[in-house]
Amino acid sequence: MDDLQRITDRLAITELLVRYCIALDHMALDDLAALFTPECRVAYGPDERLQSVGAAALRSSLERMWRWSRTSHHLSNVLIEFDDDDTASATSYVLAWHERADGSTATVYGQYRDRIVRLEGRWLIDERRMLMNGNDAGFTLELFNAERNPAPPGWIAPDLD
Amino acid sequence: MDDLQRITDRLAITELLVRYCIALDHMALDDLAALFTPECRVAYGPDERLQSVGAAALRSSLERMWRWSRTSHHLSNVLIEFDDDDTASATSYVLAWHERADGSTATVYGQYRDRIVRLEGRWLIDERRMLMNGNDAGFTLELFNAERNPAPPGWIAPDLD
Amino acid sequence: MDDLQRITDRLAITELLVRYCIALDHMALDDLAALFTPECRVAYGPDERLQSVGAAALRSSLERMWRWSRTSHHLSNVLIEFDDDDTASATSYVLAWHERADGSTATVYGQYRDRIVRLEGRWLIDERRMLMNGNDAGFTLELFNAERNPAPPGWIAPDLD
Repeated sequence: MDDLQRITDRLAITELLVRYCIALDHMALDDLAALFTPECRVAYGPDERLQSVGAAALRSSLERMWRWSRTSHHLSNVLIEFDDDDTASATSYVLAWHERADGSTATVYGQYRDRIVRLEGRWLIDERRMLMNGNDAGFTLELFNAERNPAPPGWIAPDLD
Repeated sequence: MDDLQRITDRLAITELLVRYCIALDHMALDDLAALFTPECRVAYGPDERLQSVGAAALRSSLERMWRWSRTSHHLSNVLIEFDDDDTASATSYVLAWHERADGSTATVYGQYRDRIVRLEGRWLIDERRMLMNGNDAGFTLELFNAERNPAPPGWIAPDLD
Repeated sequence: MDDLQRITDRLAITELLVRYCIALDHMALDDLAALFTPECRVAYGPDERLQSVGAAALRSSLERMWRWSRTSHHLSNVLIEFDDDDTASATSYVLAWHERADGSTATVYGQYRDRIVRLEGRWLIDERRMLMNGNDAGFTLELFNAERNPAPPGWIAPDLD
């Protein structure tokens, strides 16, 4: 695998992750489902209604996003590591803003942890697990928490705001 | 057009979009205007004061941003498609935070839809239309709404928060 | 320095900046310190407790982040310019969300201004200065303000929201 091909793959995988966000906010669920492998495993949180197996089930499950009147998913912090020529692990961050019909809002500061594979020449999401760094008071759904190392025993907070 | 040139173009176009945000927050309006073609057409919203033709008119129009005491424009979700060697269509997301002199704030979750052209070797924005995915209560200006497919007839919301 | 090497360097520097954010939210301080040169100079703000010299001192100083119960640092707007083959200047934006143990939150809209060097084949942060575009009411720490050109004398605000 030469350097130029690896760079091309990195850009294609980043574009895949971006297309997911754009399709989700558009509620273009057919476009969204086409970004996943037929056998994909996806878990947004511990509630079984937030988990699905297969692109068709994922498409159906994500109809739940219509309970929001508007959403905006902003992707950043894309980190890609290749396991082999056709398999990559990706971490990315998402700032996910949601609005209810009553005007109240809910924001999550999350991470996607993905396994991405090349299938018939196209990069697709084969596994996705969402983790939560943080959430505002309006977001009340239980998600998986991102890892955070605790302070060592006896650590004393500095007198900073 | 070889692969390496295409990658170079992608990075140059992304940098162009980033420079816009940095120049806008800096209110470096000459730097900002230099990122657009002389004949550019720009529409941030339906109000005609949010539309302009030409880089000089855009520069003048964007003086309106001084009505905010501070701003921060965070770009993400850059998606670029080439129409030909010297023309591209780009979608990007922006989280635009604004503060008034009285300390109140206004945040927009938006998209830029751009036509970008190579002119004398430099990529420049030739057409820009801004769309809004969402806004908080502090942002009261009317913008164009991004497309969002509605739920199918008879769709029932799941019992999720 | 050929074009392909420059692109590879750009992606490596972007990944370095992303790894910083991920390590910080994880409080993986050893991983974080390994992203800086041994002699790095870092200033997050005017308070001397927000400044450090050397990766070991930086690691120790950043233990202060444990005063937050959770954080999420979203990087965007990465702009890289090369000073020579092994030295680059980078500007990037960060949306930094912080939560206290009492549930109150603090958000900063900031910029990192970095000098980045290649040392034994790896890109590392040698100098970092953080600037603030804006902050919400919950964030009360004094930081350096980003530059913003003032309105010209006699400028009159338009009648826009």
